[in-house]
Amino acid sequence: TSSANYGKVYNPSANLVSSANLDTFARRHLGPTPDNVDHMLSTIGYKDLDEFLSHAIPEHVLIKRPLQIEPKKGFTESEMMDHLNSIALKNKIVKSFIGKGYYGTKVPPVIQRNLLESPEWYTSYTPYQPEISQGRLESLLNFQTMVSSLTGLPMANASLLDEGTAAGEAMSLSFHNLKGKKTKYVVDTDLHPQTLNVIQSRATNLNVEIIQLPLSTNEGIDQLKEILSDVCGALVQYPATDGSLSVDNFQKVGELVHSNKGLFAMATDLLALTLLKSPAEFGADVALGTTQRFGVPFGYGGPHAAFFATNLKYLRKIPGRIVGLSKDRLGKPALRLALQTREQHIRREKATSNICTSQALLANMSAMYAVYHGPKGLKNIAARVYGYTTILADQIKNNSNHEISNGKWFDTLTVNLNGELADEILAKALKFNINLYKVDAETVSISFDETVNEQDLVSLVEVFTGNASFKFPEQLPTIAEELLRTDEILPHKIFNTHHSETSMLRYLHLLQSKDLSLANSMIPLGSCTMKLNATVEMQSLSIPGFNQIHPFAPIDQAQGYKQLVDEFEKDLNDITGFTATTSMPNSGAQGEYTGLSLIRQYHKSNGDYEKRNICLIPVSAHGTNPASAAMCGLKVVPIKCLNNGSIDINDLKAKAEKHSENLCSIMITYPSTYGLFEPGVKQAIDTVHANGGLVYLDGANMNAQVGLTSPGDLGADVCHLNIHKTFALSHGGGGPGQAPVCVNDKLKPFLPLHTYLKTPHSTNESIKSVNSAPFGSASVIPVSYSYIKMLGADALPYASSIAMLNANYMLHRLKEVYKILFVDYSASTNDGTKHCAHEFILDLREFKLVGVEAIDVAKRLQDYGFHAPTMSFPVAGTLMIEPTESENLEELDRFVDSLLSIRKEIDAYANGDPAGGVLKNAPHSIDDIVSTSQLDWEARGYTREQAAYPLPFLKYSKCWPTVARLDDTWGDMNLMCTCPSVEDVVADQA
Amino acid sequence: TSSANYGKVYNPSANLVSSANLDTFARRHLGPTPDNVDHMLSTIGYKDLDEFLSHAIPEHVLIKRPLQIEPKKGFTESEMMDHLNSIALKNKIVKSFIGKGYYGTKVPPVIQRNLLESPEWYTSYTPYQPEISQGRLESLLNFQTMVSSLTGLPMANASLLDEGTAAGEAMSLSFHNLKGKKTKYVVDTDLHPQTLNVIQSRATNLNVEIIQLPLSTNEGIDQLKEILSDVCGALVQYPATDGSLSVDNFQKVGELVHSNKGLFAMATDLLALTLLKSPAEFGADVALGTTQRFGVPFGYGGPHAAFFATNLKYLRKIPGRIVGLSKDRLGKPALRLALQTREQHIRREKATSNICTSQALLANMSAMYAVYHGPKGLKNIAARVYGYTTILADQIKNNSNHEISNGKWFDTLTVNLNGELADEILAKALKFNINLYKVDAETVSISFDETVNEQDLVSLVEVFTGNASFKFPEQLPTIAEELLRTDEILPHKIFNTHHSETSMLRYLHLLQSKDLSLANSMIPLGSCTMKLNATVEMQSLSIPGFNQIHPFAPIDQAQGYKQLVDEFEKDLNDITGFTATTSMPNSGAQGEYTGLSLIRQYHKSNGDYEKRNICLIPVSAHGTNPASAAMCGLKVVPIKCLNNGSIDINDLKAKAEKHSENLCSIMITYPSTYGLFEPGVKQAIDTVHANGGLVYLDGANMNAQVGLTSPGDLGADVCHLNIHKTFALSHGGGGPGQAPVCVNDKLKPFLPLHTYLKTPHSTNESIKSVNSAPFGSASVIPVSYSYIKMLGADALPYASSIAMLNANYMLHRLKEVYKILFVDYSASTNDGTKHCAHEFILDLREFKLVGVEAIDVAKRLQDYGFHAPTMSFPVAGTLMIEPTESENLEELDRFVDSLLSIRKEIDAYANGDPAGGVLKNAPHSIDDIVSTSQLDWEARGYTREQAAYPLPFLKYSKCWPTVARLDDTWGDMNLMCTCPSVEDVVADQA
Ligand SMILES: Cc1ncc(COP(=O)(O)O)c(C=O)c1O
Ligand SMILES: Cc1ncc(COP(=O)(O)O)c(C=O)c1O
Ligand SMILES: O=C([O-])O
Repeated sequence: TSSANYGKVYNPSANLVSSANLDTFARRHLGPTPDNVDHMLSTIGYKDLDEFLSHAIPEHVLIKRPLQIEPKKGFTESEMMDHLNSIALKNKIVKSFIGKGYYGTKVPPVIQRNLLESPEWYTSYTPYQPEISQGRLESLLNFQTMVSSLTGLPMANASLLDEGTAAGEAMSLSFHNLKGKKTKYVVDTDLHPQTLNVIQSRATNLNVEIIQLPLSTNEGIDQLKEILSDVCGALVQYPATDGSLSVDNFQKVGELVHSNKGLFAMATDLLALTLLKSPAEFGADVALGTTQRFGVPFGYGGPHAAFFATNLKYLRKIPGRIVGLSKDRLGKPALRLALQTREQHIRREKATSNICTSQALLANMSAMYAVYHGPKGLKNIAARVYGYTTILADQIKNNSNHEISNGKWFDTLTVNLNGELADEILAKALKFNINLYKVDAETVSISFDETVNEQDLVSLVEVFTGNASFKFPEQLPTIAEELLRTDEILPHKIFNTHHSETSMLRYLHLLQSKDLSLANSMIPLGSCTMKLNATVEMQSLSIPGFNQIHPFAPIDQAQGYKQLVDEFEKDLNDITGFTATTSMPNSGAQGEYTGLSLIRQYHKSNGDYEKRNICLIPVSAHGTNPASAAMCGLKVVPIKCLNNGSIDINDLKAKAEKHSENLCSIMITYPSTYGLFEPGVKQAIDTVHANGGLVYLDGANMNAQVGLTSPGDLGADVCHLNIHKTFALSHGGGGPGQAPVCVNDKLKPFLPLHTYLKTPHSTNESIKSVNSAPFGSASVIPVSYSYIKMLGADALPYASSIAMLNANYMLHRLKEVYKILFVDYSASTNDGTKHCAHEFILDLREFKLVGVEAIDVAKRLQDYGFHAPTMSFPVAGTLMIEPTESENLEELDRFVDSLLSIRKEIDAYANGDPAGGVLKNAPHSIDDIVSTSQLDWEARGYTREQAAYPLPFLKYSKCWPTVARLDDTWGDMNLMCTCPSVEDVVADQA
Repeated sequence: TSSANYGKVYNPSANLVSSANLDTFARRHLGPTPDNVDHMLSTIGYKDLDEFLSHAIPEHVLIKRPLQIEPKKGFTESEMMDHLNSIALKNKIVKSFIGKGYYGTKVPPVIQRNLLESPEWYTSYTPYQPEISQGRLESLLNFQTMVSSLTGLPMANASLLDEGTAAGEAMSLSFHNLKGKKTKYVVDTDLHPQTLNVIQSRATNLNVEIIQLPLSTNEGIDQLKEILSDVCGALVQYPATDGSLSVDNFQKVGELVHSNKGLFAMATDLLALTLLKSPAEFGADVALGTTQRFGVPFGYGGPHAAFFATNLKYLRKIPGRIVGLSKDRLGKPALRLALQTREQHIRREKATSNICTSQALLANMSAMYAVYHGPKGLKNIAARVYGYTTILADQIKNNSNHEISNGKWFDTLTVNLNGELADEILAKALKFNINLYKVDAETVSISFDETVNEQDLVSLVEVFTGNASFKFPEQLPTIAEELLRTDEILPHKIFNTHHSETSMLRYLHLLQSKDLSLANSMIPLGSCTMKLNATVEMQSLSIPGFNQIHPFAPIDQAQGYKQLVDEFEKDLNDITGFTATTSMPNSGAQGEYTGLSLIRQYHKSNGDYEKRNICLIPVSAHGTNPASAAMCGLKVVPIKCLNNGSIDINDLKAKAEKHSENLCSIMITYPSTYGLFEPGVKQAIDTVHANGGLVYLDGANMNAQVGLTSPGDLGADVCHLNIHKTFALSHGGGGPGQAPVCVNDKLKPFLPLHTYLKTPHSTNESIKSVNSAPFGSASVIPVSYSYIKMLGADALPYASSIAMLNANYMLHRLKEVYKILFVDYSASTNDGTKHCAHEFILDLREFKLVGVEAIDVAKRLQDYGFHAPTMSFPVAGTLMIEPTESENLEELDRFVDSLLSIRKEIDAYANGDPAGGVLKNAPHSIDDIVSTSQLDWEARGYTREQAAYPLPFLKYSKCWPTVARLDDTWGDMNLMCTCPSVEDVVADQA
């Protein structure tokens, strides 16, 4: 990692053009040119990058084990595309009528191009800064409204990770709702198998007992009655996994559960709900499921958005993010994330869910699918699916010996075969390039979807009846009246407006134009690593060989994915210094949950499961850490930090020793959440090990480690990697994420299993599934895989090095006028506190005295066209800045200049200069500038130009906030989490 | 075309869901719902669409011959994608080192995704409204700067259609520069064959004699000297088509030509010029060529941008559009199209070029390619190409019996084979999936490009030398000093800034965010037909099977294109009522030129070529019509129009009879450029026929005809179709276009030939090529093909019907307060003047009296978030509005409401109300709102809110102008058509 080598990595042909291909990736990914690097180094007082690193990272941490990743020099961009395409071709695209929660769908091309493939949509962050996020907030509100309308329940969140974890959330909501006093949770036997497995995984750690009952039968009801007093809730699937619609008993189940204060939840299907009675009509408290079939491709299991709706009683208990309507400082309606005090980062170990990153991008796709089709279009699709299913059912019934075991259906038939084996039927179907689902040796199931066509049906009639000349009837059968819902769906204006492509395009464009994304300017969110999401990386999401594979497709059809997962594991093992990896967890928080579950399973294998139930967590930790520990049934013991930000090793020692008998684990983030390569990390690790605990390393800050050190080299036992941070997957405005968990040999035997296929390393000691799909959001893996493969062993360490240099350069320019937390300029070289790592904390607390808050600075930054750094994490009253390696010197300087300019505004405010008011009124929306009356404006003491163009570069390029500062309190007090109905709008206008 | 059928076309499943696929296209393409249609019909006083049409179109014109297009109901979107992909698969992707003006290139993914695939870029119009076009104007300025820097010539235009036509322009510039007095034009024998053919085509009609001389030899120079007194100019190719760099004589050629007042032009290659001496160093007056290899794929011949640079002397003679720097009303620097009085629409029959639509989108791609790579990156690419070429040359020389006929080279070798035939070598290369070029039976040529890799070289060494184990040398050979240029290339800041993908992405995003495109709001440009460019249609441009085919690839590798062109022709014949089509012309103006050339050839075949040289053109015609006629050597005789806008049939009769002996043709547009289905069209056609002329129908207004009438049914002989209007190809901010020409049996035998392959219908009476590639911009054909195939025979007539209904609805709402030109509300049904067709003209001339000009209304519309309608064409002081069928009722109403609101502002101005000043200060840029001092603002008499948000919908959605009204005069007087150099910027800042 010398400066000289950087020149070569940056442009191998700078001096001498070789025969090699020129479209190398490093210089596209890394912002600073070699000249910039020299400039930054000399600014902070070094001659060489290596010299800088040796001053910034403790010697015993800076290991620089050479990475083995091939190709060493990295694929060029075109080589990568060729390579990715060749892998994708090894996945065989077969029409999959497998169902089980995953259905074929047609992605509307206008949505594919202008949302999924639009960096303006996919590179934005979770909308914590609502004034520059009104576009995706509006889209997420549409999502909530869609879910609410279809389920009939008044509240919905803005997505969860997948159906399995959503079911897990329903279970824990039920459990915690009764304060953990009732420990039985009943699930229908007709749940999707993978959903059951995820619930069981979660229940184990909470000591909840999962009871499977055939709730659609009278026996089931009777059995439920018997145990009712211990039951905190029940979950049924509607339509059931076998396709049945045995709805007669559901109302009864709900009543029974309610009679005992339990919660009644239904896992359901939005397409079915466009026609069928809603969960609300059955008395459900919770409805959940996936929105995948609303325009999001299979992706071999993900990413897709799950939904979770409740009635108002559970408003404050609903997991995940909720978008709500509020108003801005000027009284204009404006959206923002509501009720944030529910969230894990606030509630920490008291949280009942650890969900953080969810599936915003996919939720937006699904919501837009509903906007595009509207209620009529969706019903047309559903009616057609039903019609096809019924024709096939009639053919099987009338013209074969097979029996259909479900008496009613929407899209799925389960067929008990007579005289033929499931494998034979599957093989026949495959001749027509169709996959069915094998239930058991003599049973198959078929689930139709939007993509079924006449030829498919004709083929399947032949498969099941032998009749090769089936004639399609003139009319499609229609669904029985008594199953139909009678209320109107999606009456809101938004679902009844944009049905032409022109109109849809404009709506998508309008919303993105209200948002700040990486396409505008840097998003220096500490702990979030908002680096370049390169086109070559992201385009893999559009490759049919990756996105059109059903997660339960026969594995010989998914050999491309096998290669991908295997190679990805190999590279991640190398990067982390570990020996095995699971690609199952689909968010950082899920990774934490998985890692801790592995540790618990390890202790269990030693007979220490019950005993070892304490998890040490430094007070500086991200809120998901204690929340995940709590979900694993662990007791959190906080570890103090010193004034300099480091873990208080003495406190750690004391607590580890005190709890030595019960020590399960420690969770640490490295470099710390304070952005420091604290020197005590190895000591901390050793201490925990010495006391029988294992070490969980939160990989959120992995971007400072790659090629320089590693969790394994440091001695940890397990880590997760947020590929949506370090490994270049876009943040998607709040997801998708994906978080492989890497482990050492101790934990390898416990890596999670899956009900459908043998996951890598799974054994009979494996933990259960942590989410629905065997490889989580598998289709995003190519993104990170190509990131790694294009940088290669040679350039990867520079990503970390330049990220650190960028951060320290900014720090250096800011430190004269702002306090920087914890960095000790006088510290000795090699103790890791003389410099920040890849992020640093601006301490704004001193300005409180003069009346200026961190939020004022954060909001004022929007007027400079920037997204605020992370606010008040990990320390209240501060801003944490992480530039990443992808920002170039010009952009770093623009950002620093903005903060320096704001510093002067703070002085103005402190001095009573009315111009300082610009901080309190920030951000200044275009509306504010345009519509504020002259009288009101003059009272402000600064000009519109000072408000909007405080620095000259803004006249050439500025991303504008579209609303003024949000009023959060008002919004939470007047909660409104769905689109206003047409009647409301009409009433408002009257 | 009844209203009832519209319901079925719009949503076939509205009442009963059938087995058919649901993703039908008609309702995505057509804006109004059936309910909207009823509303609009009743507003204008009709019950049914058919009834409306029968009142709007003369009975003898409204023919409604049922279209035969298959599938009748149209492909659904997914069927279309499958079908397109299956056609694309019939094109075989082979690495083509064929050269001859077309080279492999790597499209930078960030440009592909964020420019080529971005509707914000591709749906914008030619930047005639600069205040809402600063983004693409900046990009085109970069293009001009790039061309200027690389050629060494100070002026460049913003693209031409292709290298062949650019060479044609050089020839006519030379010819016209000497007022047509010298009639010999000398071209080097080493020109690309297709370029020569295009020049010859153009020369024929101008009576210019093309003389081929071997200008790189001394004999050539001697021959030149002999004829010098008759020579208006000379053109050489550098590097030459055989690859040679025999530059020694070029200076001499230039001097000789200059000595006799002629112009010296060089066709050249931008990649070569990154290393080699520039044309300016040889004394060239003109440098031209293609920018294709700068990041624009082959596309089987196009679209790509040609460039054309000159020295300052020829500033006002340069063909095509030129972007220049000016300032806005507030003194802020701002870009706009400069020197517009040069353009054909102003100069009409005095024009020397008819170029109108050019290749803006592709020019932008190439410019961005240079921005992305910068001077160093481009030189790296060029050096590598040279190195590979030289290694292969050395291998052939040293290890085979073959001879390389060009002594020096950049990227191309011409190999005289010894002991082997060209076909054998080609076959061997094809085994390695490589195409070479067959020069003759014993000669091949190879042109390397950016895509060549080690494996290719190793393969070709084996092909030529038999050595299968060639070892790549450590070092690449470098180019000889004496050939190198010594001046710096691309020193401008813009080519030295955005080299990281993050930075490039932001630059692309920033520029598009300054522009209004169809992604923002409707662009109601009369005569331009700015309809939906659907994703399914446009995505075909990204399909490798379409875009990676070299135009001179062996035809068995282009069977997909063959099918496409054949089917497309069949459908266009059906739509136009003609019998044959050529897909060669790559713009509307090129179509005109082609059609007129065919007519001249027809007369020639009757021995009437010299005699029949008069073209009748109504005064209302688009400027390209007389310009094209002039290029064809025709004398234009204008035909009057009546007060009601119709052609003055008496005048026509009189002139046709007067010129009966000499009548070549008439050019008419139908419905007329006044937007009327004038009743006299058949009479006009008959009159011309009776006097021995043929009838050219300008298809610009075809969007009012499809399925309702047709040029063939009306009795015309030939028409062109702007597929970038009627057939949904996006306008691209000023191109690409494509204009198939359809003819009846009379003209079929003359359809153009191509030097490389046999084009459909070509005979030995064929005219020469009208542009370089056999099928013009072939890769955009799938766009229009899929438009036609997705609407199908059933829905296509609705596109025209709804376009007409939309226009008439708007007209109806506007006519109370604005004069509408030519529409006669009291006219009898069936004479075609009671209603407008698909566009209408707002007559603003009465407001001149009170001081309000059409431009004030046009600019004020920007404040309402809209692009102005076509201004002052075809009548000065008017606006021509064409909504197209893709706009929905809401958008039509927003636009009408805006014009109604402006009407009140006109009254205010007329009444001396200072609020009326809002018209004169329009448009109000954000800067104006932000930075105008309070004092200045108060002098205005209206508020900022009135300026920016005159109607409430603008608060939710508004596309802002980024500069205030442009000062055109200042700009033309202070012409500046390249980016300021870094020195200028520094000087400015000092
Ligand atoms: C330190 C740390 N740990 C864990 C997480 C949780 O990751 P995720 O949001 O993917 O669940 C975050 C997210 O920002 C984080 O910063
Ligand atoms: C009536 C008419 N004819 C011809 C043309 C020229 O077409 P193009 O711009 O494709 O050369 C136009 C362009 O707008 C037009 O409106
Ligand atoms: O470009 C036009 O002249 O319409």
